[in-house]
Amino acid sequence: MSSRKAPAYRQAGVDLAAAEEVVRRLKPLAAKTATPGVASHLGGFGGCFAFPDPRGKDLLVASIDGVGTKMKVTRLTGAWRSAGYDIVAHCVDDILTQGARPLFFLDYIGTSRLEVAEVEELALGMVEACREAECALLGGETAEMPGVYLAGETDLVGCIIGTVSRDRLLPGDRVGPGDRLIGLASLGLHTNGYSLARRILIDEGLGIDGLLAPAGPTIGEALAARHRMYWAGVRDLLDQPELHAMAHITGGGIPGNLVRVLPAGCQARVETGQWEIPPLFREIESRGGVARGEMFSVFNMGIGWILVVAAGVAERWAERLAAAGWGGWLIGEVAPGGGGVQLVP
Amino acid sequence: MSSRKAPAYRQAGVDLAAAEEVVRRLKPLAAKTATPGVASHLGGFGGCFAFPDPRGKDLLVASIDGVGTKMKVTRLTGAWRSAGYDIVAHCVDDILTQGARPLFFLDYIGTSRLEVAEVEELALGMVEACREAECALLGGETAEMPGVYLAGETDLVGCIIGTVSRDRLLPGDRVGPGDRLIGLASLGLHTNGYSLARRILIDEGLGIDGLLAPAGPTIGEALAARHRMYWAGVRDLLDQPELHAMAHITGGGIPGNLVRVLPAGCQARVETGQWEIPPLFREIESRGGVARGEMFSVFNMGIGWILVVAAGVAERWAERLAAAGWGGWLIGEVAPGGGGVQLVP
Repeated sequence: MSSRKAPAYRQAGVDLAAAEEVVRRLKPLAAKTATPGVASHLGGFGGCFAFPDPRGKDLLVASIDGVGTKMKVTRLTGAWRSAGYDIVAHCVDDILTQGARPLFFLDYIGTSRLEVAEVEELALGMVEACREAECALLGGETAEMPGVYLAGETDLVGCIIGTVSRDRLLPGDRVGPGDRLIGLASLGLHTNGYSLARRILIDEGLGIDGLLAPAGPTIGEALAARHRMYWAGVRDLLDQPELHAMAHITGGGIPGNLVRVLPAGCQARVETGQWEIPPLFREIESRGGVARGEMFSVFNMGIGWILVVAAGVAERWAERLAAAGWGGWLIGEVAPGGGGVQLVP
Repeated sequence: MSSRKAPAYRQAGVDLAAAEEVVRRLKPLAAKTATPGVASHLGGFGGCFAFPDPRGKDLLVASIDGVGTKMKVTRLTGAWRSAGYDIVAHCVDDILTQGARPLFFLDYIGTSRLEVAEVEELALGMVEACREAECALLGGETAEMPGVYLAGETDLVGCIIGTVSRDRLLPGDRVGPGDRLIGLASLGLHTNGYSLARRILIDEGLGIDGLLAPAGPTIGEALAARHRMYWAGVRDLLDQPELHAMAHITGGGIPGNLVRVLPAGCQARVETGQWEIPPLFREIESRGGVARGEMFSVFNMGIGWILVVAAGVAERWAERLAAAGWGGWLIGEVAPGGGGVQLVP
């Protein structure tokens, strides 16, 4: 009943087993609070509430999340506006997987020391992203707690509420063999894999000012790249019956996120040669000696969003998305069988 | 347009001027994101969104907040369940001032190290409070970030969405001279004033295990007391036209919160001798040498909630609330004049 999900911490220093155990224990507890409006069982993802009529068509979809340790890069690069954009984009994308249109957003900024100029930059980024998402920045809270946060550190949390009609809630029941996968380009790591990337690239590698390529960008610039918001790319497709599901490629990578929209008896085959893996990921992979499979389970590898669509529209939609600058690569298909997501060269 | 409010940090080590400057700068920025549903101007408090019809009667009321440094006491006392209850109660009370009935709640737990047993206790407290508020625990996120939080420290954040009919949104326009004030009892500090209280009582005082009175409780027990949720006490009054406004006594105390419901040309006279100030507050006051006026601007001083009601119902409502265990003291009235909230002996 709860949308609490297992965080995808795969880096050293963080206890993945504990995180999964928390989810396992808390889900049944949260279920005890179900009221007539709760409709989270509908989509399988969670966070749905029917309002104003518990049996009506209007659903509210809610999600809360943080940008995580990307804020440690923000502290080094000073890209506060980018971080403000990130938290909104991350939240918008999370509920967009259910077909939800954003309504409003609230932020929480916890920090060791309140620096007005930094918070203002965060806000400017949030405002920019909210306007792009046609979403109101409805409220927020700022807490200065030097006894809770390490000196100079900040946690940035967002809560978003969106809406979707009950009959357009994704993923629907139409995902099946023959569906095609369209991948949309990411802009960088988005908000996942930062602990590992920081260790390999900054602590043990080129440093924040090192050049990723002879002509740049620097490691800091590449790591500060924004979390892409896919709203503008897919909003016109939400009413199309040929749109069967969408996956937001966050922690867990393509395998960990695409699997969530696969029905029983179906697998997804993703052809990893269909798009070019960006230099930032290749640098992490080679410099850190990280196995390819591990790379795909931590990072988005250049694909931040996947649409699962009816075969008949796949090429046309992919072309249109590509022309609009979203990447739009045909990266695979849904097939009969088990085993979840298969990565094939 | 935004419900971002000036936090009431009055303790050493926290920059109140910066917090107020953040609010001053961010409010106009947030206003730039207004969409047709935003209805925050209606009540003057903020965080209102008309849904599904931007001009309809159903309003969503949203708030995000943390329990602040009370978590540092939680770490010392182990009262995790109490802290889980606190964050929900605080959020429920915040939107209840606008007459809103809770719909659903989401939590965010940021911590240096995920301890499953602690998080489970937090969740049990949240579940208990959600059930009491008839509110669904719809989602949540847990983030383990040893590089952001001080060792052993946790931040606990909640976001609540409630609803109120547009014609019952509080404070309405009926607050005026002659209205009476009914105070409801708090259970302790709730979630405000902990930095000052910790310094006086723990760091420089009796210590966490010191006795507040010969027969107890200990300082730790008194500081861990729950944030009272006023939903069950006032829910049956929400439809009564004689209920003109309500104030949740958080940071800023009675003066800082009651002033928010006063229209221009009105003052509130609060007779501080009408209830007994509990021993915990008296101990902080005497041991710390804190001036009475400062005490009232940091702490709730035993009054966690104030109802502003029509004179004709005041005595009957106060008696009924007292009989039900809510305190229910007649503590003053609204009078013509300026100057905000006057504390009189």
